Amino acid sequence: MDLIVVGSVAYDTLETPAGKREKVLGGSGSYFSVASSFFQPAGLVAVIGDDFNPKFLELLEKFGTDLEGLEKQDGKTFHWTGRYEDHNEAITISTDLNVFAEFSPKLPKKYRSAKTLFLANIDPDLQKDVLSQVDGAALIACDTMNFWINGKRKQLLETLKDVDILLINDQESMMLSGTDNIFSAGEWIMKNGPKTVVIKRGAYGSLLMQGRELFLIPAFPVRQVVDCTGAGDSFAGGFVGFLHATGDHSFENMKNAVAMGTVIASFTVEDFSLDRLAKLTYAEVEKRYNELVNYINLKKLDLGGLLSKK
Amino acid sequence: MDLIVVGSVAYDTLETPAGKREKVLGGSGSYFSVASSFFQPAGLVAVIGDDFNPKFLELLEKFGTDLEGLEKQDGKTFHWTGRYEDHNEAITISTDLNVFAEFSPKLPKKYRSAKTLFLANIDPDLQKDVLSQVDGAALIACDTMNFWINGKRKQLLETLKDVDILLINDQESMMLSGTDNIFSAGEWIMKNGPKTVVIKRGAYGSLLMQGRELFLIPAFPVRQVVDCTGAGDSFAGGFVGFLHATGDHSFENMKNAVAMGTVIASFTVEDFSLDRLAKLTYAEVEKRYNELVNYINLKKLDLGGLLSKK
Repeated sequence: MDLIVVGSVAYDTLETPAGKREKVLGGSGSYFSVASSFFQPAGLVAVIGDDFNPKFLELLEKFGTDLEGLEKQDGKTFHWTGRYEDHNEAITISTDLNVFAEFSPKLPKKYRSAKTLFLANIDPDLQKDVLSQVDGAALIACDTMNFWINGKRKQLLETLKDVDILLINDQESMMLSGTDNIFSAGEWIMKNGPKTVVIKRGAYGSLLMQGRELFLIPAFPVRQVVDCTGAGDSFAGGFVGFLHATGDHSFENMKNAVAMGTVIASFTVEDFSLDRLAKLTYAEVEKRYNELVNYINLKKLDLGGLLSKK
Repeated sequence: MDLIVVGSVAYDTLETPAGKREKVLGGSGSYFSVASSFFQPAGLVAVIGDDFNPKFLELLEKFGTDLEGLEKQDGKTFHWTGRYEDHNEAITISTDLNVFAEFSPKLPKKYRSAKTLFLANIDPDLQKDVLSQVDGAALIACDTMNFWINGKRKQLLETLKDVDILLINDQESMMLSGTDNIFSAGEWIMKNGPKTVVIKRGAYGSLLMQGRELFLIPAFPVRQVVDCTGAGDSFAGGFVGFLHATGDHSFENMKNAVAMGTVIASFTVEDFSLDRLAKLTYAEVEKRYNELVNYINLKKLDLGGLLSKK
């Protein structure tokens, strides 16, 4: 496999302003691999318990996901329970790690020469260990969260040294860097390993920084948000999948990769779990990408004349 | 005068995370007229007390503001006192309306044929009265706030019937329309008078809606925010001033007007009161406009090939 994601496959039980769901398919690895499949299917390294619903494996496989790296252990699958009072913030009710507590990712041999690797939000020690199992990947992208920033800061900084692109949300970027704005946070991160940073701002879009280059993009205007779980991992799947499929890691192409992450994530939030992505068509992706480009497009003016008129 | 603003001129006493200031120049009319002056100076209709600092009048005049419509009354000038715990939300400590309590705007004769009118955030009954004093303005733009939405809803809806463009912040757009997202709010507003809506999202940028057209723009990345007071009125000044100066009310040109409002507002927040605008140069405006366009620019791809490869 050329594109690998290491993350979680989970049951999610959740309540949002739009309704409730019990033990639906969740986990960073699930969202990432289905999202990336619109550009490139992924090999998924994760762990499930013996209670895992085979229907969900079929869904992942339907999207071309390679499951050779998906370990099955005796015990229960990782189970997250949470609710959203508004759509922007998840409140965790319980996190039953179950078999995920002992997760020690082992890459199948055929994954070790992967060109592109996404380290979803897991223990930085595990992320580091995965890095030692791949050989010469052209692109290593990574996510993290407040839990690791606070609890395993030293190890996280160690991992970041070998990462090309960090995807991180706005609050966590400031927490990691000890700054009070996302632009300073991005600059701090770029001094600590990753040459490129993507900062995610949920319903407010995201930004891409690389050296002195900056790209700002709003979220796609979704009218009926149902469930924001997995939006960040879907964004990552669209972003990394597009970069892999195009093989072009230039800043210009990364801007379009961010647009693609934005588009895929905008579909994810329209229904619970992977329900919307499961029926998403290429035509819909293309239509929404074209709409997004249209919504942000501005024809640059020559202001010289106007400003000097005064 | 061709461009008129009706609003407030005030003393602001405030504390932000960056410091404190006492009785500095504030008020929607002050911010609007200095901001618009980068494209077109305005006639300012407002009221001050006999305690008003003449230095501030000099500042307004330095920016070409016509003060024939600025009434001077016996008594004290409107005085707002507030603080910001973070930069996004002002907490009002006191509002001493003083002479502003009896404000009844009277347009000087030479203002009545104005081509462009901005009704800043004042009592909708006064806004309506001002509308009856102008004759055939080509462009009427308006702002409002929660206080009037809740307290004078009927009168506000009456005023909106005669307004071309409503500028409103995101929370207030949802409050006015009774919807839970800004896109539905914009559509509701367009059914109630204004053909064009600008929804302001503070540090997250703004959006422009007109019929089925939509334009989304982020805020300019400011590294050191000092004081967000007047950002919305500066945005309005840049936006309306640019529309007036170009005389082009097409959607395409409105997109650039929104960009210009974004640029001017981004300078306002870099210092207290009008301190940053007071020393702003045309070269800086042009440079930041060009940077903003660069930060949001995306070259559209033809995806056909990529998506069908799978």
